[in-house]
Amino acid sequence: MTATENPAATRTLGDRARDHLWLHFAQHAGYADREIPVITRGEGAYVYDERGKRYLDGLAGLFAVQVGHGREELALAAAEQTRKLAYFPLWSHAHPSAIELAERIAAQAPGELNRVFFTGGGGEAVETAWKLAKQYFKKTGKPTKHKVISRSLAYHGTSQGALSITGIPGAKQDFEPLVPSAIKVPNTNFYRAPEHAGDYEAFGRWAADQVALAIEMEGPDTVAAVFLEPLQNTGGCFPPPPGYWQRVREICDAYDVLLVSDEVICAFGRLGHDFGANRYGYQPDIITTAKGLTSGYAPLGAMIADERLMRPFLSGGSSFAHGSTYGGHPVSCAVAMANLDVMESEDLYGRVLSNEANFRATLEKLLDLPIVGDVRGQGYFYGIELVKDKATKATFTPDDAERVLRGYVSDALFDAGLYCRADDRAEPVIQLAPPLICTQEHFDEVEQILRSVLSEAWTRL
Amino acid sequence: MTATENPAATRTLGDRARDHLWLHFAQHAGYADREIPVITRGEGAYVYDERGKRYLDGLAGLFAVQVGHGREELALAAAEQTRKLAYFPLWSHAHPSAIELAERIAAQAPGELNRVFFTGGGGEAVETAWKLAKQYFKKTGKPTKHKVISRSLAYHGTSQGALSITGIPGAKQDFEPLVPSAIKVPNTNFYRAPEHAGDYEAFGRWAADQVALAIEMEGPDTVAAVFLEPLQNTGGCFPPPPGYWQRVREICDAYDVLLVSDEVICAFGRLGHDFGANRYGYQPDIITTAKGLTSGYAPLGAMIADERLMRPFLSGGSSFAHGSTYGGHPVSCAVAMANLDVMESEDLYGRVLSNEANFRATLEKLLDLPIVGDVRGQGYFYGIELVKDKATKATFTPDDAERVLRGYVSDALFDAGLYCRADDRAEPVIQLAPPLICTQEHFDEVEQILRSVLSEAWTRL
Repeated sequence: MTATENPAATRTLGDRARDHLWLHFAQHAGYADREIPVITRGEGAYVYDERGKRYLDGLAGLFAVQVGHGREELALAAAEQTRKLAYFPLWSHAHPSAIELAERIAAQAPGELNRVFFTGGGGEAVETAWKLAKQYFKKTGKPTKHKVISRSLAYHGTSQGALSITGIPGAKQDFEPLVPSAIKVPNTNFYRAPEHAGDYEAFGRWAADQVALAIEMEGPDTVAAVFLEPLQNTGGCFPPPPGYWQRVREICDAYDVLLVSDEVICAFGRLGHDFGANRYGYQPDIITTAKGLTSGYAPLGAMIADERLMRPFLSGGSSFAHGSTYGGHPVSCAVAMANLDVMESEDLYGRVLSNEANFRATLEKLLDLPIVGDVRGQGYFYGIELVKDKATKATFTPDDAERVLRGYVSDALFDAGLYCRADDRAEPVIQLAPPLICTQEHFDEVEQILRSVLSEAWTRL
Repeated sequence: MTATENPAATRTLGDRARDHLWLHFAQHAGYADREIPVITRGEGAYVYDERGKRYLDGLAGLFAVQVGHGREELALAAAEQTRKLAYFPLWSHAHPSAIELAERIAAQAPGELNRVFFTGGGGEAVETAWKLAKQYFKKTGKPTKHKVISRSLAYHGTSQGALSITGIPGAKQDFEPLVPSAIKVPNTNFYRAPEHAGDYEAFGRWAADQVALAIEMEGPDTVAAVFLEPLQNTGGCFPPPPGYWQRVREICDAYDVLLVSDEVICAFGRLGHDFGANRYGYQPDIITTAKGLTSGYAPLGAMIADERLMRPFLSGGSSFAHGSTYGGHPVSCAVAMANLDVMESEDLYGRVLSNEANFRATLEKLLDLPIVGDVRGQGYFYGIELVKDKATKATFTPDDAERVLRGYVSDALFDAGLYCRADDRAEPVIQLAPPLICTQEHFDEVEQILRSVLSEAWTRL
């Protein structure tokens, strides 16, 4: 470190961040003439910056903080477990909080999804699922099955295996070559359906059949798994059309391909259920999850596998040659138990199901604005697509996007007291996924801020 | 979950673990007729199982628990930060504990390593470093530089990018194809030196020159980075020969290849210094680290980059297209700060430097046993290589390894009250990396248990 800076004490946290902290997915040039926003505390559905300004947390941190901020029960659980056993790995040993949490997760997971492999987060759960799929087929006499299929725009993580599954070209192109053999199929964006635009069910059937087509083109003997979110986040909340999941399940059965439900976002109440698979009534072979499991209070993810996938590893000298230092961290598991207790005792999943229609109706009021093309999602998980022309669904030029969306909307929403995400990796969408404790007053606050900022944005086009 | 099991209350934790918890890097078949060991609490240098039996933690959990178990200061730091702000991402925003920790790390890191990108752990730090190397060269006019070089047997992580860098074939073969273009060179195992066996410095020069050779064979315009641990863990603690690091630095400069010092294990006191690079006096372009940063009390890793590597990302609309939900978790960063406070106030790095000669001398007593071939390492970080014939350095047959090492030594050490690792991914070694609070009494305890178990193992060969 060079000593050319002023003493830390005389400078704001934002200044100090600029010197040493490399932010994630951030355009640092944008901070040359304005401060990096610094969030210092949270309480319920709100977070506060270093000047005490309040923001409604419209994204639950990052699709994670289901129980809201500042929960004393979770602080106590973290402290208690830290005192007892702050760290021990799951490498050939176990510890109580991981055992109890595995049991609890297995009890909720659908069907025979009885085996829980803990990870440090969601991306690592996705890596784990792909690695398991590869090794499972080698152990069961189908060693050429190793490829994976996932959907256009879908985000599955940023480590290089998970990134290969991710369907966002712009997030990958500077890092190629990645793990080969990760194939993409269309997602379920019905608003921009290239086929069957007038018939949601036919569109869903078509979208599911693209998975079969991809398997056929690659060769069924080479394909190990399909990775899909119950409801896809990136692109702006694409729900599954009716029958979509059932058809994908049939296809996976027909070709002996594992169906991985990537529920890093969708599990633990985001859709009003323990698992998205339970909401939509399908049976995956593997669920990957993270985020809501601890409400983000501690890093933790999990891969939950069907009983039959562990069977080849239960005899002989074989082992699943995988693990990580922090997968199933004792404190993270204890925090997860306390978090699930809170969600149960306050019936947060039930609250989501009771309130989701009102949340949606409140957001749909925005459809009277010329810039709002579509509102979609379920549970406490919505995307609002912005358009330049509602009739034609025309989207923005690169110049509009830079000037109005990146240059105005993102900052204006934050300045107006709403923390959410204006994402333009595909068509521009506002992403909303607030804490599950939110009620009508919060929905109204979201709607009012969006109305004001999006109205102003329209005048700037 | 099926309902065929007995109620949880009537069963031990070990039984319950067997039903649902998929352990990391574990041969589950081995638990068919014995219980999974369950560690329930820790205190200082010891951990305890569910029956109250005590074990000396000879591995610091997993090369992590520098300050020992049960530190009240760290429990309080976790609770306090959880109350204040339990979670917020570093995606285009910052929070105080990450800002303060980045500043502190940058102040300690050698040279201009001023930029800290936080991750959820070590493997993710390695992924981050490779991704940065790929994008950095694309941004600076050398878009064909993307390959990486690392050493035989070296462990760098298990996500598929980090796993590609890992040099342990058995940990990779079931998961191929991985990220292409990760080349391996020989490590610095002088005990089994294939060249210059009598001359440590000449051997070191040779080993370093293998990096140049690999770069030449691949083509310098295609190579982005070299990943090396200051002192390599897997294989059993291979220190760098004199001049090795200086020669590697020259080679990287000559070919414009980034030198990544992978200090996931070696930083934060394991070698008696803040960073291994500072112990051995070389200047990396990137340091990757984790483990000791929080003493394992909370999941956290970091990639620390030279100032010049961030420069292309500080202007224009460009960004390093990378991040993760839990990288730089607020609680993990607060725990890291408290952990570094403890290490400073108790001068743990200084204690390692004062005690390391005695630790080594105590372990070297074991060289009188016929099964002990070599004792190597530095700081609080040693490997003891076991051999079948000391004179010829002959190692074990697969049958010996299965029957005596896997079938006896591992369990016998644990039963005798020593938690450490008997690793036979290459030649068999006992790995030792105890908490930095350990003193002569602990060294003696390690030596006595090893003496007893290894003497018995010899009779079983």
